[in-house]
Amino acid sequence: MNCRFGLRSSQSLPLTTNLAARQRSLSTAAAAKTRIGFVGLGQMGYPMALNLLTRGTQPSTHEFIVHDAFPAASARFVAEAGTGTPVSVAASVGEVAERADVIVTMLPEGKHVRAVYKGLLGAVGKGTVLIDSSTIDVATAKEVAGWAREKDALMVDAPVSGGTPGAKAGTLTFMVGSPTPEAFEKVKPYLQHMGKSIVHCGLNGNGQVAKICNNMLLGITMIAAAETMNLGMRMGMDPKLLASIINTSSGRCWSTDTYNPVPGVMEGVPSSRDYEGGFGTTLMSKDMGLAVSAANDSKSAILLGGTAHAMYMMLARTEGYGKKDFSSVFKWMGGEKDAKK
Amino acid sequence: MNCRFGLRSSQSLPLTTNLAARQRSLSTAAAAKTRIGFVGLGQMGYPMALNLLTRGTQPSTHEFIVHDAFPAASARFVAEAGTGTPVSVAASVGEVAERADVIVTMLPEGKHVRAVYKGLLGAVGKGTVLIDSSTIDVATAKEVAGWAREKDALMVDAPVSGGTPGAKAGTLTFMVGSPTPEAFEKVKPYLQHMGKSIVHCGLNGNGQVAKICNNMLLGITMIAAAETMNLGMRMGMDPKLLASIINTSSGRCWSTDTYNPVPGVMEGVPSSRDYEGGFGTTLMSKDMGLAVSAANDSKSAILLGGTAHAMYMMLARTEGYGKKDFSSVFKWMGGEKDAKK
Amino acid sequence: MNCRFGLRSSQSLPLTTNLAARQRSLSTAAAAKTRIGFVGLGQMGYPMALNLLTRGTQPSTHEFIVHDAFPAASARFVAEAGTGTPVSVAASVGEVAERADVIVTMLPEGKHVRAVYKGLLGAVGKGTVLIDSSTIDVATAKEVAGWAREKDALMVDAPVSGGTPGAKAGTLTFMVGSPTPEAFEKVKPYLQHMGKSIVHCGLNGNGQVAKICNNMLLGITMIAAAETMNLGMRMGMDPKLLASIINTSSGRCWSTDTYNPVPGVMEGVPSSRDYEGGFGTTLMSKDMGLAVSAANDSKSAILLGGTAHAMYMMLARTEGYGKKDFSSVFKWMGGEKDAKK
Amino acid sequence: MNCRFGLRSSQSLPLTTNLAARQRSLSTAAAAKTRIGFVGLGQMGYPMALNLLTRGTQPSTHEFIVHDAFPAASARFVAEAGTGTPVSVAASVGEVAERADVIVTMLPEGKHVRAVYKGLLGAVGKGTVLIDSSTIDVATAKEVAGWAREKDALMVDAPVSGGTPGAKAGTLTFMVGSPTPEAFEKVKPYLQHMGKSIVHCGLNGNGQVAKICNNMLLGITMIAAAETMNLGMRMGMDPKLLASIINTSSGRCWSTDTYNPVPGVMEGVPSSRDYEGGFGTTLMSKDMGLAVSAANDSKSAILLGGTAHAMYMMLARTEGYGKKDFSSVFKWMGGEKDAKK
Repeated sequence: MNCRFGLRSSQSLPLTTNLAARQRSLSTAAAAKTRIGFVGLGQMGYPMALNLLTRGTQPSTHEFIVHDAFPAASARFVAEAGTGTPVSVAASVGEVAERADVIVTMLPEGKHVRAVYKGLLGAVGKGTVLIDSSTIDVATAKEVAGWAREKDALMVDAPVSGGTPGAKAGTLTFMVGSPTPEAFEKVKPYLQHMGKSIVHCGLNGNGQVAKICNNMLLGITMIAAAETMNLGMRMGMDPKLLASIINTSSGRCWSTDTYNPVPGVMEGVPSSRDYEGGFGTTLMSKDMGLAVSAANDSKSAILLGGTAHAMYMMLARTEGYGKKDFSSVFKWMGGEKDAKK
Repeated sequence: MNCRFGLRSSQSLPLTTNLAARQRSLSTAAAAKTRIGFVGLGQMGYPMALNLLTRGTQPSTHEFIVHDAFPAASARFVAEAGTGTPVSVAASVGEVAERADVIVTMLPEGKHVRAVYKGLLGAVGKGTVLIDSSTIDVATAKEVAGWAREKDALMVDAPVSGGTPGAKAGTLTFMVGSPTPEAFEKVKPYLQHMGKSIVHCGLNGNGQVAKICNNMLLGITMIAAAETMNLGMRMGMDPKLLASIINTSSGRCWSTDTYNPVPGVMEGVPSSRDYEGGFGTTLMSKDMGLAVSAANDSKSAILLGGTAHAMYMMLARTEGYGKKDFSSVFKWMGGEKDAKK
Repeated sequence: MNCRFGLRSSQSLPLTTNLAARQRSLSTAAAAKTRIGFVGLGQMGYPMALNLLTRGTQPSTHEFIVHDAFPAASARFVAEAGTGTPVSVAASVGEVAERADVIVTMLPEGKHVRAVYKGLLGAVGKGTVLIDSSTIDVATAKEVAGWAREKDALMVDAPVSGGTPGAKAGTLTFMVGSPTPEAFEKVKPYLQHMGKSIVHCGLNGNGQVAKICNNMLLGITMIAAAETMNLGMRMGMDPKLLASIINTSSGRCWSTDTYNPVPGVMEGVPSSRDYEGGFGTTLMSKDMGLAVSAANDSKSAILLGGTAHAMYMMLARTEGYGKKDFSSVFKWMGGEKDAKK
Repeated sequence: MNCRFGLRSSQSLPLTTNLAARQRSLSTAAAAKTRIGFVGLGQMGYPMALNLLTRGTQPSTHEFIVHDAFPAASARFVAEAGTGTPVSVAASVGEVAERADVIVTMLPEGKHVRAVYKGLLGAVGKGTVLIDSSTIDVATAKEVAGWAREKDALMVDAPVSGGTPGAKAGTLTFMVGSPTPEAFEKVKPYLQHMGKSIVHCGLNGNGQVAKICNNMLLGITMIAAAETMNLGMRMGMDPKLLASIINTSSGRCWSTDTYNPVPGVMEGVPSSRDYEGGFGTTLMSKDMGLAVSAANDSKSAILLGGTAHAMYMMLARTEGYGKKDFSSVFKWMGGEKDAKK
């Protein structure tokens, strides 16, 4: 136990710095490895964990412990991990907490975060670093951070943007809410193995706030871009020409210049491949629901935000759209038929 | 310089026809000057006309004829014009048509365009070049272009963006709908004295289509930006930090990165000076009304566009907002109080 | 000709009153029949014309002249008319105008009304009574009424509500805009054979205004009713119970108490027969477009009206909904699946 | 204690029936009075409590215990109660629980309900009847009912409609969610002294569901009515005539036929007295927020509901509207100016 807490303090050193200190601790105990736990090996979590393992650990200094509600996911991860840093499977989240110094979680919804952290926080030691990369409601993020504080654990909310491609490529953006600037500096080295942009957004919960604000705005501008392109095309304009005019004018936005929803305007975006891949209508619907929830709690009037949320809910439930990219809202509103004319 | 203006005068030759006739007139009289008419010397038209006069004409090769519904405007223009290229006032639009080879019009609404062009087209000669820079409904733009065609005049719709600052600085963007690519090339030299970007948008009417599409998208994204900033601030985020995160993410748009509606986030934008100057709520309301009209005619579903239109109508009528920049929608929705917290 | 104009003045007597005067005119000339023309024998016009013929005319005092763009419709009408009041087919609208004293028109859109009335008004005699029952934009209704005034004809706009069932049963509501109260009294007797409620709404155009106002409100309340029922059901309430509570409370509206959109709540409404019959999504979309047009012209902020318009446009274009009743918006928004749970 | 539980079973008899049984119990113990507690003597609670006291109790058979966060409210109640049934003030909600058999609560928000019921349920005896008439979110209503179940108390949610006038007149409508039909029958006699319509809406939480569904629909239809009236008036129609046409047509709703928002159309409604009295914009905003919350939890798409919520939030915050009736939305959207024309 003593030993374990000693390790904990060394484990909080950045992975890539303080080599002297680390070597000191290594010299005093062969067991002085940093033990990283990862809970949630889904679409996003799996490739994130793999990047963290392969880029951020080495056999001599790290151990890696994984857990997922589906044991098959853990087994697959162990198999794919190969013979580098040792990877073991924990039978429960409590076991992860007992064995790891740094724990990353990637879960679908607030209710899962509550359940998992109840398990983790029943067993964590003081000073454990907890990084929740789930996208959840701000209220839950703040509440769970409060639980962690009571256990003297250091928790940050660090939701991501970039989707599964970004998770695989290790190019995610992390939006981090942390109790102190020092805490942000402490988690940053771990996140850098999974993402290329690590942004400090303020206190706990603000990571979630930043993410849902960005995604709400994205959700609205995409519908707005779709309506605008559709209107212009129906009035007789060539969509590429219209996009090029808008993209050098005041209507310009990411949804027109980087992710245009009209088939044929841009290459390499979901609209060019029948809206396959990308950021699904269901996920956008979920994220906008989080924005609506935050707006309701904070009594913020989000007229367009609420409207867009309802539109994505209807879109996601329309037959054939549940698994499409959210830019398929262009087709849903009657756009494509006209584009082909 | 000589060469340059020589080119200009040749460029002002009537476009496709009557070369022989013109050569005759050139040989018989030193008076073979290009005569430019300008109708509508309002907030926008006045500085545009001044730029066209001072940058695009010289005494030896041009005459300039102006007309405005308010004679005082014309008188003021003559006084300010000075002793360069001769400027005279026409008593009626019919007189402008009789005397000018190239005519630019800048009028408030479609009904004025109809009235003025009825007057002009009753007196124009064949081949007269007509440039309407008013922002009006597409249906009127197409119809009036049809009238011009019947008179063998060459008409383009060329609405602008850039506001009065752009009009004064000569940095407007012109969105041009023209009957042929050649016609576009023919009007471009004139427009270049008043703007820095001259975009060909297709056939007659498409200049208007491009403008209302851009402005509809702008109108929606501004409200969306205001809602998003307000939400984030109420949830505890610093507005500058939130803007910086959004501006490097997928929510990015002109309304967040160039014209942020939250006081204190950016310098030199209307939100930093209590929403003075800029693009007024009434003008945005008017432009969105043109978009709604086009959408209704073309049976395009613009759910957010229609919503935003109604919001700007209500905003423009709220006491104290009628003369503010359209980004004051942030304050109107209750944003400013929170920003000050 | 003299004779004809004599007839005209007698024809303007209400059909069911002034019997003495009528008998006088009948005694002076066997030819003194009232000649009724009907243009537009579509879904609505056909049964309306049949009611006017069978209930409002008799062989000794009337003639009936029909015209439709499709000759087959006229032929079918003549066949079905039988051997009572003589029915003849006019080859053109001009012929209708030449031969009839009272003319009813029932056409799809404003552009058809313009075209037909150009034809009619080129040939009508002074004092001819013109009743346009088409649902069209207010601007066209007023303009065409102006044309009629120039020809000394008496024109009213008299759009209907009640749908094809009401047209067949003769129970339509007519909303009448007329130049004078006397003109309203003059057309009322004819309308009473086709409808049970004849409402004077003011000057020309106001019949259209009343209709689009009612239908805009109906369109919004139907969506609102659908959202509310859906929300309550998803929260666990029995839809019949919820409807009964609302219908005795302040949320009550025609869309909940007379035309509830949830299958199984009421008998005999479209929702109880998979949304067959009733008032189609396309027609609702069209009527709301007229409201949007009027709002744009009058600078009225209709935030919910514009939103509902866009929703019906999208609904009407969704595969399988184009021919359904407009209350199918409940199913479209994801309602039915939950109702079955 | 025994004695107390004996009383409890007698207390569960309806107040006005089973007189024989009651007299039996009265004969066995002079102390066998029904003890009614009331927590929350605000705008609504005060007159409700007064009605329950004066209509539903008598000195020989009842005691009345009150508590409010502001002691002055309790003192005023005792003073106004007079010399009939004895009224005493409890120093805490815990004391109310200890002393009362039936407890009614009327509190502003869910957080107050949570706090008060934590206090009450720490001290209630088995079988205590708990009636919460607060309008709160469904999730809280269900959760608190669960706490009561664990204590073997019988709890119902019974939010009201009718406002302060209904509270004073004792004509409220109660929408009751109860664990069983029997429980509903048990609380009904108490509610009948405070209201005229007592509706069973199903299980716990459904009282809240029914109320927020009704009020969401009301909130939308009021805006829709305001838009429609405004449109018609701007198009030239007399508002009384327009209302009368709509009220006999399919656009009819409570907001047009009972509570018309246009000044001068109806007598005795808030619009006829500059929107004073009635149901405040802030309360409507709050209730629609509860609907948005329920919709978000149940993943119900409420496009118009969310839009209306945002509109009432903005309305309530506009200077001069915070204390007006919610039908003032007509004036806010620019209606009044036209009405006066």
